[in-house]
Amino acid sequence: MELKKNIESKIVSKTIVTIRFSDVDSMGIVWHGNYVKYFEDGRESFGLEHGLHYLNVYKNGYFAPIVNIECNYKNPLRYGEKVIIETYYIDSEAAKIIHEYKLYRQSDNELVATGSSTQVFLNVNGELQLTIPAFFEEWKQKMKIK
Amino acid sequence: MELKKNIESKIVSKTIVTIRFSDVDSMGIVWHGNYVKYFEDGRESFGLEHGLHYLNVYKNGYFAPIVNIECNYKNPLRYGEKVIIETYYIDSEAAKIIHEYKLYRQSDNELVATGSSTQVFLNVNGELQLTIPAFFEEWKQKMKIK
Amino acid sequence: MELKKNIESKIVSKTIVTIRFSDVDSMGIVWHGNYVKYFEDGRESFGLEHGLHYLNVYKNGYFAPIVNIECNYKNPLRYGEKVIIETYYIDSEAAKIIHEYKLYRQSDNELVATGSSTQVFLNVNGELQLTIPAFFEEWKQKMKIK
Amino acid sequence: MELKKNIESKIVSKTIVTIRFSDVDSMGIVWHGNYVKYFEDGRESFGLEHGLHYLNVYKNGYFAPIVNIECNYKNPLRYGEKVIIETYYIDSEAAKIIHEYKLYRQSDNELVATGSSTQVFLNVNGELQLTIPAFFEEWKQKMKIK
Repeated sequence: MELKKNIESKIVSKTIVTIRFSDVDSMGIVWHGNYVKYFEDGRESFGLEHGLHYLNVYKNGYFAPIVNIECNYKNPLRYGEKVIIETYYIDSEAAKIIHEYKLYRQSDNELVATGSSTQVFLNVNGELQLTIPAFFEEWKQKMKIK
Repeated sequence: MELKKNIESKIVSKTIVTIRFSDVDSMGIVWHGNYVKYFEDGRESFGLEHGLHYLNVYKNGYFAPIVNIECNYKNPLRYGEKVIIETYYIDSEAAKIIHEYKLYRQSDNELVATGSSTQVFLNVNGELQLTIPAFFEEWKQKMKIK
Repeated sequence: MELKKNIESKIVSKTIVTIRFSDVDSMGIVWHGNYVKYFEDGRESFGLEHGLHYLNVYKNGYFAPIVNIECNYKNPLRYGEKVIIETYYIDSEAAKIIHEYKLYRQSDNELVATGSSTQVFLNVNGELQLTIPAFFEEWKQKMKIK
Repeated sequence: MELKKNIESKIVSKTIVTIRFSDVDSMGIVWHGNYVKYFEDGRESFGLEHGLHYLNVYKNGYFAPIVNIECNYKNPLRYGEKVIIETYYIDSEAAKIIHEYKLYRQSDNELVATGSSTQVFLNVNGELQLTIPAFFEEWKQKMKIK
């Protein structure tokens, strides 16, 4: 299990975002709720790079809504700083897409936040899928996860 | 024209919004882009009160996208303050919905911003309507604008 | 411990938020990142009602930054709906403020999301406090938590 | 005046932004209020490129709050599209920083929006400056505006 996780965690995508003035709160640091946007930027980057984009999911007849988000804040981010977003794929035997995130301040490589997101699959009628959709099994095989 | 405008400007709706922590920037005041949300809150209030809601427009077969926004900032707003949003209907002979906004700080009735928005009508095929839709003419009559 | 938790969970605050058009994404439901704002609305309401507001904390010489956020999404929220936000205080022996959140759709009392937040204390020099600040111990006593 | 404007409008900065999923509303297009963020991205790019950044202004003892924003919407933007933001400097004899914006969809060079912003100068005591600050006169000279 541990080994498997190590293998899986090699599937990663990296993207960089510059902190906007409007992302920062009255304490002069990024408002904590904005990290959810950075996770989304990471997921977008991951999807485009590894063929697991929202549009791929949709084309195959599914939606993949977020059912869980978690974020741990380690160090503040400030206006104008660049943040490196690493988005990992974490495999699961359930019909879920699980990502973990590591955010680093680019200037000093300081870890600023970690987090995770879990998505489930709904078909076009909005019904929750309890088994892994065929296209997602194929994606796992292509990615050598199984 | 001036007289007409005076009559029209009696059609108004008032709503109150409390400033969120996340609305405030690193200067400790509401980030200027957030006023567009307050205008939307005002339009929502106006639409519900006077029967010109987004959903009324949609039910009649139209969309009413914003084509122009303007905002003049007079005084800052801070976290926790309450802002009174007055939304006026400004009549036009064109196929447009025009609103003007006046925002006051509730605690001292200070004018904090003024602004305006202009919406046009698109039919379900996304085609711009150059003549005033029937339902909107009826609304004007009901409101004694014409 | 379990008993204690039951007692603690009686300290709650309730507030209601109306879903803005700009809170909704292209799926027609509230974008998941916006729930963090609703949690903040809940915390604001809790703080004002029970004397544990951001400003009380600040007045006593501390900041209380968020170090963890979690949200579980159960049911979608749509534009115009009203959401009831229940914010609970969860006691801890650590120098932390922990809240749990339950969000209900007002129209049918359906549970739409649950979540939690954890805050730590920093003094004015930005140093993490490992022991509970005196003002917070007093607050707990006043609230009959201890 | 016309000639002067032509000269001035040569001072421009160009930046590109990718539309986020969370920028899009339930109509599937960018929510109109988000264009104010794109203007800010443009201003940030202009400031860094031409030495008129928020931090330059601040270092010289001034704040430059926005007092007017205007936006004209020409064509919709969708999730994943890239938008080119052109930010122009428009000279004025008043103590103001005026920018105009042109936004183009990158894929087809279609004009999607135009707009403007006006900033004034406040000193550290928050007093409005009626004469052009010395550092800004120097900037104009360096840029060959005067």
